[in-house]
Amino acid sequence: MSQPKLTYLGPQGTFTHQAALQAADQLVREYGVAQPRLEAAPDVPSIMHVVESGDSWGVIAWENNVEGYVMPNLDALIDADDAAGFARVGIDVAFDAFVKSGVQQDIDGCEVCAHPHGLAQCKRFIEQHHLRAVPASSNAAACRDLNDGQVALGPSICGELYGLETVARQVQDFTGARTEFLVVAPRDEVRALSAQSKQSKQAKQAEFETIVVFIPLATGPGVVADLLDVVRDAGLNMTSLISRPIKGHDGTYSFIATVDAAAWEPRFRDMITQVAEHGDWVKTVAVYPRREHPNPPVDSWMLPSGGVRLDATHLEEGWQAGQRVGRELLW
Amino acid sequence: MSQPKLTYLGPQGTFTHQAALQAADQLVREYGVAQPRLEAAPDVPSIMHVVESGDSWGVIAWENNVEGYVMPNLDALIDADDAAGFARVGIDVAFDAFVKSGVQQDIDGCEVCAHPHGLAQCKRFIEQHHLRAVPASSNAAACRDLNDGQVALGPSICGELYGLETVARQVQDFTGARTEFLVVAPRDEVRALSAQSKQSKQAKQAEFETIVVFIPLATGPGVVADLLDVVRDAGLNMTSLISRPIKGHDGTYSFIATVDAAAWEPRFRDMITQVAEHGDWVKTVAVYPRREHPNPPVDSWMLPSGGVRLDATHLEEGWQAGQRVGRELLW
Repeated sequence: MSQPKLTYLGPQGTFTHQAALQAADQLVREYGVAQPRLEAAPDVPSIMHVVESGDSWGVIAWENNVEGYVMPNLDALIDADDAAGFARVGIDVAFDAFVKSGVQQDIDGCEVCAHPHGLAQCKRFIEQHHLRAVPASSNAAACRDLNDGQVALGPSICGELYGLETVARQVQDFTGARTEFLVVAPRDEVRALSAQSKQSKQAKQAEFETIVVFIPLATGPGVVADLLDVVRDAGLNMTSLISRPIKGHDGTYSFIATVDAAAWEPRFRDMITQVAEHGDWVKTVAVYPRREHPNPPVDSWMLPSGGVRLDATHLEEGWQAGQRVGRELLW
Repeated sequence: MSQPKLTYLGPQGTFTHQAALQAADQLVREYGVAQPRLEAAPDVPSIMHVVESGDSWGVIAWENNVEGYVMPNLDALIDADDAAGFARVGIDVAFDAFVKSGVQQDIDGCEVCAHPHGLAQCKRFIEQHHLRAVPASSNAAACRDLNDGQVALGPSICGELYGLETVARQVQDFTGARTEFLVVAPRDEVRALSAQSKQSKQAKQAEFETIVVFIPLATGPGVVADLLDVVRDAGLNMTSLISRPIKGHDGTYSFIATVDAAAWEPRFRDMITQVAEHGDWVKTVAVYPRREHPNPPVDSWMLPSGGVRLDATHLEEGWQAGQRVGRELLW
């Protein structure tokens, strides 16, 4: 196989660039492809364009554990004529602080450059060092365009990429933010890669996840319930479900589900067959090796504040009329 | 009733400020309250804090038709000990271009200041006028801090607020983006306001929507399907549904549903009662007068590219084996 190209959201040094580097290693390891050549694109529509024209694979942000799905990218993949995801990689949203190499290291009172989101995520560090915030168009651009006497905040790869000195690591206020990316390719390539992955020794032990989009052609009470009955009755475990208006048409709904099964498994095919034969629109937008994900029991300390939780084995008579219940349920 | 306070995300001139102005009018009209006094807060946690301590009502961004739910705000409301939504307002995401009053109006080649998102949303205008983009921490801050010879992009209210001259209106590339906001208050106040709204002449004709959060205490295949069966069997129409990990615990799930019914309607109460008696955690986070929303039939032209749609009345034998079907479903 010739050297594949992998296009990411530039400039060099973005979190998507970091995800592309990680994805490249993963593809070499899991799919045995030649080391991909990375290329930056100015925006996601450009990435989808090169993917659909067969010139490149692409890396697009999919979901962040704080911000949720990256809806414009999700919409773009759903509406793509010829693109689907075949790998998924996660990147910790962590910031390092950089200065120009060989410049004095006392950063207190300096200007600090980053995207406003980056500045907002590193408030504590900025306050500690009495830095003056200067917004930039992206964290990577802040690192690229850094001047003497300034500090830039960005992904760790920016240090090497732009020849900067790292003065502090992991300066974000909140540790644990994570963005997941999908690697996308033309649909026939995704099928070929999956077929190969299925057969390879490593993947035999692996399992897969599939992201599928349903659009019920009738609307009204019960359409989602009816749909999910079919998923449940097939014994399929859903790990994510959202509704989303179709291409911004208020009042119309697509349902995007992530399911713990490969698109080609009999139980999955049977489920899809049943939904399609019901007349609903259906499209599979990604299939990739299953990520580790825990399935912990829900403990009381995880539950949000307030709310109502009953002990189903010891129901009190008239619990519905309680003052606290009325407060939590607004009735 | 004394003058209520309404706290929004500052500085003055943000889209949230514009939403707060609109919400204030709506509250006067629909709830008969005195004209609220508006106050800016630096971030959403500060807004939730003043709301929960009973000092103010708050306005928080809830959902955008392009970007989806504002997850950190949704998480904050779900986990609030004493806050719930009681009104919902929508704001068009539209940008005007401003200069300092009395300064020459030929803006070509000038610097243009806005939040990077604002700059990205007005690319065409920026190119037409050969403007040089200068990122700001917020659009409102760009307007507030505008210098001679610069252009700022921001919500229309910034003109009057900061005494600027509007040189062009509606300069965003994409018309139709819209952000919806919830007005939140302590839960007992929400119940009192709802009771009043129920009885007022205007609201008698109105209907309500309710946002409710479910956490199934058991996990595994079928939990959502079982839950939604209860919603369907109660005859309730859901207009939005998403799953979300509980407080960032991977593998745990809450379900956030928007339902076309008031929290106090018998069919809604019966549904919630059944879910709670099953042992699942449940909390109502908002109830507000129903918005106009269309329920159009899904026409072919609305459907995304590709996918599979069968005519259920004329099923072809062996359709599952088709090349196009395999391509769209990745099997």
